[in-house]
Amino acid sequence: MSEQKQAIDARAILSGYRASIDNIDAALIHMLAERFRCTKAVGVLKAEHGLPPADPTREQQQIARLRQLAKDANLDPDFAEKFLNFVVREVIRHHEQIAAANGVTKTG
Amino acid sequence: MSEQKQAIDARAILSGYRASIDNIDAALIHMLAERFRCTKAVGVLKAEHGLPPADPTREQQQIARLRQLAKDANLDPDFAEKFLNFVVREVIRHHEQIAAANGVTKTG
Repeated sequence: MSEQKQAIDARAILSGYRASIDNIDAALIHMLAERFRCTKAVGVLKAEHGLPPADPTREQQQIARLRQLAKDANLDPDFAEKFLNFVVREVIRHHEQIAAANGVTKTG
Repeated sequence: MSEQKQAIDARAILSGYRASIDNIDAALIHMLAERFRCTKAVGVLKAEHGLPPADPTREQQQIARLRQLAKDANLDPDFAEKFLNFVVREVIRHHEQIAAANGVTKTG
């Protein structure tokens, strides 16, 4: 096979991977949008019923579960934990916005 | 409705949201695992065919597309861009590992 032909084949294969990555990214964005819809509803519910904003036991369970799921899917568990922390930082930002909109001051 | 009844109802609703969040997180972890499977294959392909590791045009297209998808899904486009950057940092780490395993030195 000529070098030129090999380069064309490589480009075609790359194109295929990129189509998969684009589909996966669209799925990720929509799953994240749905996750934040849920966590925003949780924020409103907790604010309305005076439930504590943080729940360390639940958070520990989530970390342990995601690490195990990651292992099973051949994904670095440390990355999975970093990802959860990244998402949770955004959740906290939303909950602070909800609290601010309800005139509740930050209690930590 | 008594305060106690209201608190029990709130707990039940919270439980339902948490079940949704857990299902979504499992989906996210598996989509991320599949995305990294693709990007690792891209890394190998690029290394084998001497294709440039970075492609700024493609990256700009991905950012613009994800921002638009986020807007359509009522997700903060800035968060979507931060999320892509977060994932791409991990992809670069993997590609450096692939390059190191192939004895290629980092060229930036």
